[in-house]
Amino acid sequence: MISVVILGAGNVGLQLARAIYSVVDCELIQVYNRSEVEPSVLPEKVPFTSDLSALYKADVYLLAIPDDAILGFSSKLPFKGQLVAHTSGSAALEAIDKKNRGAVFYPLQTFSKESTPDFRSIPICIESRSQSDLETLKKLASSLSDTMVVLNSEERVKLHLAAVLVNNFSNHLYKAAADFLEENSLDFSLLRPLIGETANKIYTLSPEDAQTGPARRGDLDTIKKHLALLEESPYRELYQKLTESIQESYGKKL
Amino acid sequence: MISVVILGAGNVGLQLARAIYSVVDCELIQVYNRSEVEPSVLPEKVPFTSDLSALYKADVYLLAIPDDAILGFSSKLPFKGQLVAHTSGSAALEAIDKKNRGAVFYPLQTFSKESTPDFRSIPICIESRSQSDLETLKKLASSLSDTMVVLNSEERVKLHLAAVLVNNFSNHLYKAAADFLEENSLDFSLLRPLIGETANKIYTLSPEDAQTGPARRGDLDTIKKHLALLEESPYRELYQKLTESIQESYGKKL
Repeated sequence: MISVVILGAGNVGLQLARAIYSVVDCELIQVYNRSEVEPSVLPEKVPFTSDLSALYKADVYLLAIPDDAILGFSSKLPFKGQLVAHTSGSAALEAIDKKNRGAVFYPLQTFSKESTPDFRSIPICIESRSQSDLETLKKLASSLSDTMVVLNSEERVKLHLAAVLVNNFSNHLYKAAADFLEENSLDFSLLRPLIGETANKIYTLSPEDAQTGPARRGDLDTIKKHLALLEESPYRELYQKLTESIQESYGKKL
Repeated sequence: MISVVILGAGNVGLQLARAIYSVVDCELIQVYNRSEVEPSVLPEKVPFTSDLSALYKADVYLLAIPDDAILGFSSKLPFKGQLVAHTSGSAALEAIDKKNRGAVFYPLQTFSKESTPDFRSIPICIESRSQSDLETLKKLASSLSDTMVVLNSEERVKLHLAAVLVNNFSNHLYKAAADFLEENSLDFSLLRPLIGETANKIYTLSPEDAQTGPARRGDLDTIKKHLALLEESPYRELYQKLTESIQESYGKKL
């Protein structure tokens, strides 16, 4: 039984707390947050503290805090020689202050209060300084998820970059569509099934094979029509750049 | 009972054929395609022809052919005064040759051989020249789908533009991620749950509220790291433009 303390009760911390609480072979013994949190958001009966000096002893401390806070916060931990893993995609393992055994436990997913993704499907990327710590993190990861992968910090940063492309940037395109439709009094929710199927297709087709649309088939009439409709839009340049990038990828110049 | 002939047996035509065949209150009486198709891809016992002069008489003819073929093809139809609807997002109603009663029946979805989306969830956008044709198309659309919307050609083009943003362009970002990960010997399939959840979030959050990531929070260190990793990549400029667009949307300049 691996005992875990989670430090930070934002979206990542709370989802990790719920996931760890719900599996049998690890124990969530405490949640820390700088400020008080609504007791109702925490799993029932899990002790909470906002006092660093009151932290329990645990096998693993998981830091679910902003990247730029990792170094400062980890240096303030009132103990030494413990396994302390951050949960960031882009921070290096070295961001953990050296007085503890630094490690990484990065769940590759986007977390929000509104949605509870199935943790078993979330890849967990782990990294540590020693083989014995790696074994502990492997056990913890595989009790939570069906996909566990050991990556060094450089590999993890690259994976995180790719995650930015498919998550942050796709979501920004959803926003561009929502803004454009709103201006034109059309209903964004009409796009939901399309957005879902676009994401779903990657299970059966490579993104390359799944590509369709005016840019892919070199339909210049439609592209011109769209650019004219975007004349006043802040998203016009984005439309043009993405269209050019598709044309370049598939070997057709505009 | 509405009788339907489908003209064109590409992805859209075949998915429409299966959907119409499977509901009780309309009847798929024939499928036409310029060239022969594998009988196995058609619903069982549906007559097939590649001879225009052998078309059956039907209440509705649905053209599932490329946009730029609609005018030429519809002028070659060997009958007059019938209800002929194209299924395109961007072609105008006027693309149908005037000798028949032109209309539009546009299912807003991306279709592929590999995937059969649930037709009931697909919004169907309809347009016609007369109220009585509109009633026929409404009946057909609502027997296939839970979402039917009457749009004029201008509105439909705008919706199609938004569809390009969320479908073609998001898929291109998936390809950018796949290419980048492949070059770095990392596994694209690790991103699948993230891609799914990104799409799923729009059911509970507006894209604006769902936005996270380095550009949204003004994390310049991570953005610089990513741009350095993309130094040699064809997607570097796209990363930069999307980052700038996010910063502009949320009022933070780089």
